[in-house]
Amino acid sequence: MTATEKAVNWKSRPTTAEGWVRRADEVAAVLAADAVRRDRANQTPYEEVRLLKDSGLVTLLGPVEHGGGGQSWSTAYRVTRAVAAGDGSIGQLLGYHYLWAWAARLVGTPEQIAAVEELYTTNDYFFGGAVNPRDRDLVITDEGDELVYDGRKSFSTGSKVSDLTVLEGVIEGTDKHVFAIVPSHQDGIVFNDDWDNIGQRLTESGSVEIRGVRVPWESAAGYVDKQFQPLTYNTLNLPTIQLVFANFYLGIAQGALRYATSYTREKTRPWPYGGDDKQHASEEFHILDTYGDLQAKLWAAEALVDRAGSAIEELLHAERESVTPQQRGEVAVLVAAAKQRIIDTGLEIGNRIFEVTGARATASSVGLDIYWRNLRTHSLHDPVAYKRVEVGRYALLGELPEPTWYT
Amino acid sequence: MTATEKAVNWKSRPTTAEGWVRRADEVAAVLAADAVRRDRANQTPYEEVRLLKDSGLVTLLGPVEHGGGGQSWSTAYRVTRAVAAGDGSIGQLLGYHYLWAWAARLVGTPEQIAAVEELYTTNDYFFGGAVNPRDRDLVITDEGDELVYDGRKSFSTGSKVSDLTVLEGVIEGTDKHVFAIVPSHQDGIVFNDDWDNIGQRLTESGSVEIRGVRVPWESAAGYVDKQFQPLTYNTLNLPTIQLVFANFYLGIAQGALRYATSYTREKTRPWPYGGDDKQHASEEFHILDTYGDLQAKLWAAEALVDRAGSAIEELLHAERESVTPQQRGEVAVLVAAAKQRIIDTGLEIGNRIFEVTGARATASSVGLDIYWRNLRTHSLHDPVAYKRVEVGRYALLGELPEPTWYT
Amino acid sequence: MTATEKAVNWKSRPTTAEGWVRRADEVAAVLAADAVRRDRANQTPYEEVRLLKDSGLVTLLGPVEHGGGGQSWSTAYRVTRAVAAGDGSIGQLLGYHYLWAWAARLVGTPEQIAAVEELYTTNDYFFGGAVNPRDRDLVITDEGDELVYDGRKSFSTGSKVSDLTVLEGVIEGTDKHVFAIVPSHQDGIVFNDDWDNIGQRLTESGSVEIRGVRVPWESAAGYVDKQFQPLTYNTLNLPTIQLVFANFYLGIAQGALRYATSYTREKTRPWPYGGDDKQHASEEFHILDTYGDLQAKLWAAEALVDRAGSAIEELLHAERESVTPQQRGEVAVLVAAAKQRIIDTGLEIGNRIFEVTGARATASSVGLDIYWRNLRTHSLHDPVAYKRVEVGRYALLGELPEPTWYT
Amino acid sequence: MTATEKAVNWKSRPTTAEGWVRRADEVAAVLAADAVRRDRANQTPYEEVRLLKDSGLVTLLGPVEHGGGGQSWSTAYRVTRAVAAGDGSIGQLLGYHYLWAWAARLVGTPEQIAAVEELYTTNDYFFGGAVNPRDRDLVITDEGDELVYDGRKSFSTGSKVSDLTVLEGVIEGTDKHVFAIVPSHQDGIVFNDDWDNIGQRLTESGSVEIRGVRVPWESAAGYVDKQFQPLTYNTLNLPTIQLVFANFYLGIAQGALRYATSYTREKTRPWPYGGDDKQHASEEFHILDTYGDLQAKLWAAEALVDRAGSAIEELLHAERESVTPQQRGEVAVLVAAAKQRIIDTGLEIGNRIFEVTGARATASSVGLDIYWRNLRTHSLHDPVAYKRVEVGRYALLGELPEPTWYT
Repeated sequence: MTATEKAVNWKSRPTTAEGWVRRADEVAAVLAADAVRRDRANQTPYEEVRLLKDSGLVTLLGPVEHGGGGQSWSTAYRVTRAVAAGDGSIGQLLGYHYLWAWAARLVGTPEQIAAVEELYTTNDYFFGGAVNPRDRDLVITDEGDELVYDGRKSFSTGSKVSDLTVLEGVIEGTDKHVFAIVPSHQDGIVFNDDWDNIGQRLTESGSVEIRGVRVPWESAAGYVDKQFQPLTYNTLNLPTIQLVFANFYLGIAQGALRYATSYTREKTRPWPYGGDDKQHASEEFHILDTYGDLQAKLWAAEALVDRAGSAIEELLHAERESVTPQQRGEVAVLVAAAKQRIIDTGLEIGNRIFEVTGARATASSVGLDIYWRNLRTHSLHDPVAYKRVEVGRYALLGELPEPTWYT
Repeated sequence: MTATEKAVNWKSRPTTAEGWVRRADEVAAVLAADAVRRDRANQTPYEEVRLLKDSGLVTLLGPVEHGGGGQSWSTAYRVTRAVAAGDGSIGQLLGYHYLWAWAARLVGTPEQIAAVEELYTTNDYFFGGAVNPRDRDLVITDEGDELVYDGRKSFSTGSKVSDLTVLEGVIEGTDKHVFAIVPSHQDGIVFNDDWDNIGQRLTESGSVEIRGVRVPWESAAGYVDKQFQPLTYNTLNLPTIQLVFANFYLGIAQGALRYATSYTREKTRPWPYGGDDKQHASEEFHILDTYGDLQAKLWAAEALVDRAGSAIEELLHAERESVTPQQRGEVAVLVAAAKQRIIDTGLEIGNRIFEVTGARATASSVGLDIYWRNLRTHSLHDPVAYKRVEVGRYALLGELPEPTWYT
Repeated sequence: MTATEKAVNWKSRPTTAEGWVRRADEVAAVLAADAVRRDRANQTPYEEVRLLKDSGLVTLLGPVEHGGGGQSWSTAYRVTRAVAAGDGSIGQLLGYHYLWAWAARLVGTPEQIAAVEELYTTNDYFFGGAVNPRDRDLVITDEGDELVYDGRKSFSTGSKVSDLTVLEGVIEGTDKHVFAIVPSHQDGIVFNDDWDNIGQRLTESGSVEIRGVRVPWESAAGYVDKQFQPLTYNTLNLPTIQLVFANFYLGIAQGALRYATSYTREKTRPWPYGGDDKQHASEEFHILDTYGDLQAKLWAAEALVDRAGSAIEELLHAERESVTPQQRGEVAVLVAAAKQRIIDTGLEIGNRIFEVTGARATASSVGLDIYWRNLRTHSLHDPVAYKRVEVGRYALLGELPEPTWYT
Repeated sequence: MTATEKAVNWKSRPTTAEGWVRRADEVAAVLAADAVRRDRANQTPYEEVRLLKDSGLVTLLGPVEHGGGGQSWSTAYRVTRAVAAGDGSIGQLLGYHYLWAWAARLVGTPEQIAAVEELYTTNDYFFGGAVNPRDRDLVITDEGDELVYDGRKSFSTGSKVSDLTVLEGVIEGTDKHVFAIVPSHQDGIVFNDDWDNIGQRLTESGSVEIRGVRVPWESAAGYVDKQFQPLTYNTLNLPTIQLVFANFYLGIAQGALRYATSYTREKTRPWPYGGDDKQHASEEFHILDTYGDLQAKLWAAEALVDRAGSAIEELLHAERESVTPQQRGEVAVLVAAAKQRIIDTGLEIGNRIFEVTGARATASSVGLDIYWRNLRTHSLHDPVAYKRVEVGRYALLGELPEPTWYT
């Protein structure tokens, strides 16, 4: 019986943001118990998604009237972070889920929003996606009442372990991108089970074949009479997901520091040379110095991630029509800055924790490498150099980034 | 007629925190106009202190009933920062002044607090100090009704340009430190005018001789019947001033980035090689990349400085008796972390702005070196390595730093 | 049939240093072909050691009259480095072997040197060791004509795949350390096969039980009539092995850059945004910038490693009696500096190559993580902070490090 | 009487490379005595050039038959570096002089080479230049037998304190660059005395007006019958001068470390907190740690600078016709790498020496800021980002940089 199976039976749902973050911490503790073992086994996270559902985290953003938590995005970010501190992969899955669960709000019609939120909240449905933006490889055929999706996505995070999948494609012969939410388990969706990367191994981010998946036009997110009326609000998806990234990176880095400090306290030996009669590793100047440096950097990154979270939350929970390109652009720049800081800081932590835990901490069974591998892997999602350029263009010229699939 | 002499006649006092920060920005703009010239001249900042008084910033924390701004510490920090963005030295003078103006609250009796606040607010008095903690070189003789201070302080920031000076010494033959506020201009206080350092040149931080300065026992801060009842609140002076440091460092770094970006926009030429037909320096990838990196780092440092500011403000404006060692210690750790981040970041900015402005920006007349010199100088006040160790000890062991003259 | 099995039948032995380095490059190419696969499998390197023997590298330092290469230490270092560029673990095994093969010269009597060199050169014997210096856990009983070793060593790199093992222990009730060379495969040596670490996985560095291994007194290295006459030359073992470390770190970093550049050239896609119509990743400014930074740092580290190699070679090939503590100390400081630089540089390369290869390069099959894992693991052998302190003490005070088991 | 006036009367000239470097060290010691004072005074270095002449360093590369040192370029580099360790400005002047003194060899005819070398060696002439490559602002009129130079150069390092000046211009209506050596003191050369920058202040690098300076065609370097036959060798001027830069940067950094360590030993106080009863700053772990880090980095940069020096020396002293573009390109890449490393390292040293000397070391009289100012100023000569790109293009694609005015 694994740690996740042993998870406590969550009696009741929290009612405050603080309560939800505590709940997330509890979930993280369950996950952390065997995160390294599951990582090495590259094990499909069915149980882990079950845990997210049972604990209530899946419906954190869902309407209270359907049994959801009714929380706001800043809580979703903190919860994502907390879960990632226990298991980076599961933090990513949950963070992505929150975005997909918000997809209807981002681009859907009021009817679609109502339907999707009721559907997923009532049923504790978990979302995955097949929306890798870089490859235009899902082609949609317009068959009158229905759209038919065909093609292949290189990456489809979480879809395999989800109930609902967000598809994205382009209608043949047009420039029209159409998002739609479809059942994840149907004949037309074939998972290639080819996700075997060095980090974030439990996210089931492999490729997927889409073969004639049919979607009624009324499910085409935001389309009314086959037309889409764009709002700036629609383009919040990118800063929102980029800040999801930043939050699970932050969680991973926090998890790294938490585990490393416990290792140093309990197992690291003082160096037998150096003049003093040291009894504990915690008397080593360089160990305290390094931990202080890493902790200060992590707090600074956290403070900026939180600042970006407050800023985007204000937009995400505003009237959709009220959000301006200027607001959207300023938030995007802040998110780009926060992402840079946590990537730099997280990688430094993932690397340097070894210097303060020592040679024996490199045993595979200790698993201290998981943090660097997780951060290194996902932080390449899009080149951080271009995030620096976005912030630089704003700092130098006051120019805001154009909305793209990465900004 | 210099820039500071030309300063607008400030008609009215702001009433909100935002208004005060705007006022500080205006003051900073006046100061920035000739900050480099005054720095090279090592000129005693009489006019600049006059500007701080005229603009109302000096009484920002003073009681409203005596004409003060009645603002809180987080505003004082933001104002310090804003002024430092225009002139690092004057930002330091103002920040120190805020601490000295709060000294009565930190250690004084209720009567002393009331008297000091009325005195300085009503008269727009500016504070200096002779409280260099490292050297125990002011000896106090207890003459019954009066205390007599004698000795020498290596550093007495701002005292020369101030109205009131905070003295610190130890009563001979005891361990009793006594703070007292005395008129800065009296025969017993002799300024050696020996402050000629590479940065923060306008702070008049030189040494001072104290010769028989007499203080009635009732002015001995916090003493009642020659006894002092210590409170944890008394020891907030250290984190408070350390965060003053962090705030004017932050302001200096912001000023650096502001000036550098304007220089790059207006004067820096694109490199004639590199493949593209660049018309402006702002098309250089490496320039945008570097500015983005620096801006993101600065925002992260700022977010942490602000977080520490909120935390300490809560303690500084609480009931004195209610502040616990745990609260004080946690704030001190946060301040130590914030200080580290802004020192690292500020020095990096002070150094790397040259790479994005170019060779001609090294002309003395441009004055782009002032930021690095200012930060480099004051950031050595106490070794940042020990600040890392303090944070590290907390991160690793949960231990809080002992209150000292530096923590 | 694996890559190593397919290795060409090496017809003849090189006769020049350059020829030996080319040979090592050829060996490295064979190893590189399946290094990642073998690493993931944690496969005992029998074949790889066979390759080292067949190629002649094992007897590189052996006397020409017995069929050895008769080369000097600077060639041994370059060969170690070249092999490590193909497979970090095998580079380590070879480098350690060179030290053990030199152990007789370091501490043995002339007769012992002659015997050991003939034995291993004639038979192509490979060395392992059970000499972990930190734990004094092999106890030697003096039984008159023989010494009997008993105990356990936490680390015994390469011993399992070797022919001869260098044992180190302390005679019971004394402070006398005795090194001896014994057959690796005997009943008294039991390998626990417990080396499963995140890097340098193929080095068989697990623990070993030593049960009554008997060594005649005449094999006790350097002992004559049970007495040992120490020379400064004896203590060259530490700088020699520390520079072995630096060389295989350097090789690993070179291998990392070589593989990453080939990946970028062949597979990395240009970013679809950013203004220019880029056809290749090699047109990305940030990619060229990063590679230039990493290459320059690597060349600098290499130049210092080579400088240290020249310096120590001069001592290792000098008359043993002529080596002075001052010479030894200065070399040790230089080695400590070289080690620092290649650790910092190698870890940075192992981390940042991902930024210039892109997200798909995180696939497990690509194996780009092996360099960071290898470097991260072994670079913790002893704390690099203390290496900095050694160099710092020399820079500041001119003091040389005391010979210890780590310096 | 200043330090330079007091300089010993150099009796005889060294005859070995080592002897010349010792001589340079002696010169550096004289210069170091008042380098900071002269820097603050922005004093024209007449005496310092006199010292370079008297000590024989000016004719180091000159032919022995005319009284020159007959040394090679690797010695010139080491001498430049040694002088720069005492005074960065004078190191720059000397290094530039060596290039100008070699200009005839780089592009001149055999007759020109012979004439120039005899002229300057016999007379101890010092060279300056007006060859700022970025601005095409000297126009040459071809008047039949003579060329007439007119215009303005933004930078003319050392020309004011020199005997001979190398002019560069373009013949009107053509693309022909013509170098010529002319007397520095003539009516047609007017120095604007406008060099007032934050570093390298004593290099007299201000702008110069050129008004009708006449040069006979036979002095047009390398021109025969008004035609120039280009050789790859001609283009060695750029890597040669770029490595001059690297060498005086290295010298400045060495000077910084030398002065800082002496300050720490003699003046820096241990921190009164931190647990141990420290008597000296040299017992501070963080001070030793930092010095060790800086020293190791400096040694690595030095090793790479020396490696580049050996490589370019081989080309500079080869048959001119034998030098290939491939050789030239590989050396240029190595020089670009060396320059990067010493810039990064030197700036880090210039910045961090304050952390190990302490707050009082920021006194203007200590002058510890001169190193950062000197390095910061000249290291902007051309953007180091493009140097990284050059090395990166070579590392990634094997491509060599095109010869330009900066490569």
